[in-house]
Amino acid sequence: MPAIESPYLLFLGDAEDPLTAKVARGIVDWRPEQCVGQMKLPGCAVDLGLRDMDLAQGREAGARTLVVGVANRGGVISDSWTRALVEALEAGYDLASGLHDKLADRAEIARAAAENGRRLFDVRHSDESFEVASGAPRSGRRLLTVGSDCSVGKMYTALAIEREMRSRGWKVDFRATGQTGILITGSGVSVDAVVSDFISGAVEAISPANDADHWDIVEGQGSLFHPSFAGVSLGLLHGAQPDALVLCHEPTRTHMRGLPQYPLPDLEACMDLNLRTARLTSPEVRFAGISVNTSQMPESEAADYLASLTDRFDLPAVDAYKDGVAPIVDRLDS
Amino acid sequence: MPAIESPYLLFLGDAEDPLTAKVARGIVDWRPEQCVGQMKLPGCAVDLGLRDMDLAQGREAGARTLVVGVANRGGVISDSWTRALVEALEAGYDLASGLHDKLADRAEIARAAAENGRRLFDVRHSDESFEVASGAPRSGRRLLTVGSDCSVGKMYTALAIEREMRSRGWKVDFRATGQTGILITGSGVSVDAVVSDFISGAVEAISPANDADHWDIVEGQGSLFHPSFAGVSLGLLHGAQPDALVLCHEPTRTHMRGLPQYPLPDLEACMDLNLRTARLTSPEVRFAGISVNTSQMPESEAADYLASLTDRFDLPAVDAYKDGVAPIVDRLDS
Repeated sequence: MPAIESPYLLFLGDAEDPLTAKVARGIVDWRPEQCVGQMKLPGCAVDLGLRDMDLAQGREAGARTLVVGVANRGGVISDSWTRALVEALEAGYDLASGLHDKLADRAEIARAAAENGRRLFDVRHSDESFEVASGAPRSGRRLLTVGSDCSVGKMYTALAIEREMRSRGWKVDFRATGQTGILITGSGVSVDAVVSDFISGAVEAISPANDADHWDIVEGQGSLFHPSFAGVSLGLLHGAQPDALVLCHEPTRTHMRGLPQYPLPDLEACMDLNLRTARLTSPEVRFAGISVNTSQMPESEAADYLASLTDRFDLPAVDAYKDGVAPIVDRLDS
Repeated sequence: MPAIESPYLLFLGDAEDPLTAKVARGIVDWRPEQCVGQMKLPGCAVDLGLRDMDLAQGREAGARTLVVGVANRGGVISDSWTRALVEALEAGYDLASGLHDKLADRAEIARAAAENGRRLFDVRHSDESFEVASGAPRSGRRLLTVGSDCSVGKMYTALAIEREMRSRGWKVDFRATGQTGILITGSGVSVDAVVSDFISGAVEAISPANDADHWDIVEGQGSLFHPSFAGVSLGLLHGAQPDALVLCHEPTRTHMRGLPQYPLPDLEACMDLNLRTARLTSPEVRFAGISVNTSQMPESEAADYLASLTDRFDLPAVDAYKDGVAPIVDRLDS
């Protein structure tokens, strides 16, 4: 995949729920210098704190790529977006998207790209082919973030751990397994778009054998307890062969994302099932900490909650976004 | 997908290991009337007990489709097969294959099909698109075969259960999830070829809500304990929402298929992990029996082994191929 040109204008469409804009949010949080502004359609109820811009204003501010920063359930390109995306191509933007639906498969968008000499980046779709996973032990250290649910901070936590290790001078790489991570780092594989026979093989490929003191921080996906996506999570867990796991959790969530009839798992059960299944390819795996998204809790309650988790599990419990992840990295070997 | 025309000539290539010819074996065992003969290349060490034929003899015997009956690890079309497959197209055969590698992607094969007006069936590749799984409870009864390893009799067992239920006048359908099952029944989805986000959704789609007294017998894939494929197995388990599970096992296997460093799981652990994970979408799930492939054991030893399993797990234990599955079906509600 050739490099996506920055800076970006972030397209939020008609997103009503901040969680659906997590692609845009992630880019803003980890690469703010790449984002000139945000673009909304009528009905959009999400705000990233960037300047609101139309296409012309974005171009004046230097933007070269319009990034579709919204991830719908199922990854569909909304018909209501098509006109704006075509106008962007006409205004000189490349387009980048992490949706399942490919920009290149929409006739109007493909035609406008061709007519205007612009490029379409469907980062969720890999053209690479992978081997079936071998399960063979490999050198180097790997940490995987796992979740009680989808969208609970697995990518954030992994990026924060990479940043912390790098600041300590350790050898470390973040390994992106989803569209936002790929848009942030420019490489990786969207494992949920890989043919299912090759999930574990793709993860083996993006986190290959390395120096004995090198850490790969592998971005987790989904949850072993999410009925739609647990297969992806298990394949990722086996392919990553993690030495260490970090559990990511959002304690105010009342049900599994998108599925009101499914409650969140008990954290003990979640950690136990992750360890039990991870041991298949990494017998010595252990948890190194818990990363909690406390953004929906009062500050005082958040501190008490984190302390209670530390007591309960004898593990560092942090909000990676607010507090960083130093206590977790302290538990790992440099 | 249009219907694949029978009868078949079964192409065994240069297969050295009977397990790699399980596609052909399955077709012979469940649809013998569709098979006129077998065709081998030099080096082939597999025999299905059919008449050996070359392409001309097969045509004389009425064969209309040459079925690639060999499934390599990774699903690759061997270069050594290409010449034979092209000659088959020239001799008037359609080709059908269940490999990952598509016949249609091989330039020589695609060209020969076009020039000779023949059809290529890549049954592992579905052109259908699926929804993300909803996990919503649905009516009807479902049974899923699960395995201690790959290639231990999950399809055979499911087909035998369908046959037994049908003979009792029950409402029942076999739901194919792999290439052989699709070649046998003419419908289904190869779940290991589905984009991983949609594994569970694809299984929900092929085993939809049905009459309260209707059984779907869903073919299992892989094993929760196989490091290459466990993600597929888990997604299939969640999508199937099984009321009943049947454990399939091959007791002489010394390691997980293709991975000498991985031992077979303990059967208690295997049953426990399947139940524990299946309960996410089907809280009342239970095991209805154990189906053992005893073909590699002496007869007397096999009988003792089955009896010991029944004692140990308080479940019927049968060799589905030799003895049928009546004791398992006896445990289920009509």
